[in-house]
Amino acid sequence: MKQNIYDDPTFFTNYSAMPRSTGGLEAAGEWPVLQAMLPDLAGKRVLDLGCGFGWHCRYARSAGAASVVGVDLSENMLARARAMTDDAAIDYRLIAIEDMDFPAESFDVVLSSLAFHYLADIAAAFAAVRRVLKTAGRFVLSVEHPVFTARAEQNWFYGPDGDILHWPLDDYQAEGIRHASWLADDVVKYHRTVASWVNTLIDSGFAISRVAEPGVTEEAIAERPDLRHENRRPIFLLMSATAN
Amino acid sequence: MKQNIYDDPTFFTNYSAMPRSTGGLEAAGEWPVLQAMLPDLAGKRVLDLGCGFGWHCRYARSAGAASVVGVDLSENMLARARAMTDDAAIDYRLIAIEDMDFPAESFDVVLSSLAFHYLADIAAAFAAVRRVLKTAGRFVLSVEHPVFTARAEQNWFYGPDGDILHWPLDDYQAEGIRHASWLADDVVKYHRTVASWVNTLIDSGFAISRVAEPGVTEEAIAERPDLRHENRRPIFLLMSATAN
Repeated sequence: MKQNIYDDPTFFTNYSAMPRSTGGLEAAGEWPVLQAMLPDLAGKRVLDLGCGFGWHCRYARSAGAASVVGVDLSENMLARARAMTDDAAIDYRLIAIEDMDFPAESFDVVLSSLAFHYLADIAAAFAAVRRVLKTAGRFVLSVEHPVFTARAEQNWFYGPDGDILHWPLDDYQAEGIRHASWLADDVVKYHRTVASWVNTLIDSGFAISRVAEPGVTEEAIAERPDLRHENRRPIFLLMSATAN
Repeated sequence: MKQNIYDDPTFFTNYSAMPRSTGGLEAAGEWPVLQAMLPDLAGKRVLDLGCGFGWHCRYARSAGAASVVGVDLSENMLARARAMTDDAAIDYRLIAIEDMDFPAESFDVVLSSLAFHYLADIAAAFAAVRRVLKTAGRFVLSVEHPVFTARAEQNWFYGPDGDILHWPLDDYQAEGIRHASWLADDVVKYHRTVASWVNTLIDSGFAISRVAEPGVTEEAIAERPDLRHENRRPIFLLMSATAN
């Protein structure tokens, strides 16, 4: 299934109001870690999978990328991404990741922020990425962390006083579909173990270059004390892989 | 600190009574997965770090290894390991992993079962492994999973009726020492994130070949229904890495 929850009106309205939608990369806590995992983009051909409003595409160009293609399944998001730039070197395309028809080995860098946990078949998607990526090219992606996707509820466990007691983990080994309530009533995501993410990359022709599970800095907690809970469990899994 | 909890009398007595101590590898649920991650051992020089009673050393010989060195910090465990074999091709050595004085590149395969989460400095230990392992040699290790080591309590969260509700995760990003109660009152372990285990291997001169988080099979659950809880959270992290 190629889900397009981002064109659901309720979801789109709620997503558009999120800090990372209005504030861009600066409002995404994990961005500095993802950014540090990217190779030098100067002069590179870059592909962004699940580009949304195009924040990463515009960043890639500001970092010197020669050209950028942003891919997404949501017409709403691509329309807004197109409205936010007049850069002729950014091309936004409405297509599913598994159906990409770009020439083989036509990109130097592929990045993807928080898109792959929506995909039913990551082996097929990773194979599609490997095909369009040059040998020795870099694939950097972030996904919701398996510890976060395991239970469909995706919420803390609270004590009788309403305090957060801990993060409840369950059903970890049961990979597959999850019907989450996040910005809309039924958002379909797919839970996989950490081992599956890493091994499927390896089996798809990649070497693992780096893994990250970003936490929150002391500085950020000093500004917003409620962010301290973000260090109690990982929420995102970031992987950097090199095409063999 | 080079901890030797295995020579604590209470710990040793309790550990010796565990199924995996009396029944060996067959009683260790994760063994088939660890075994499958090992390369062909025929004719190889094998090093086992934290060899305990020597079950893996004797297995390596039964799988055709030319010679095996078992390393442990516990005199009690090595004494029992020595008593369990008269195989002259197995050498048991009392030494800390970080202090190993074997010649450089003298082993084809290094394995370690559930030892490295006792080490304060895995970068130093991985460097020691890389030094004694031949280039293109394989390092296969298992550790307690970061999801399991995060909270020192290392126990399920129970409801008012005594039922298991879920696995409580907390303090994930706070890497460092944990004072666990497991077979003895104060067992010192070290918690690290998944990212730290993987990245420290990469930074120590290894390529990641495979990661596993073994669950329990349906057959095992059919025999022992209480084992179903083992699929609710990962308990072990297994990694196979190749020396660059």
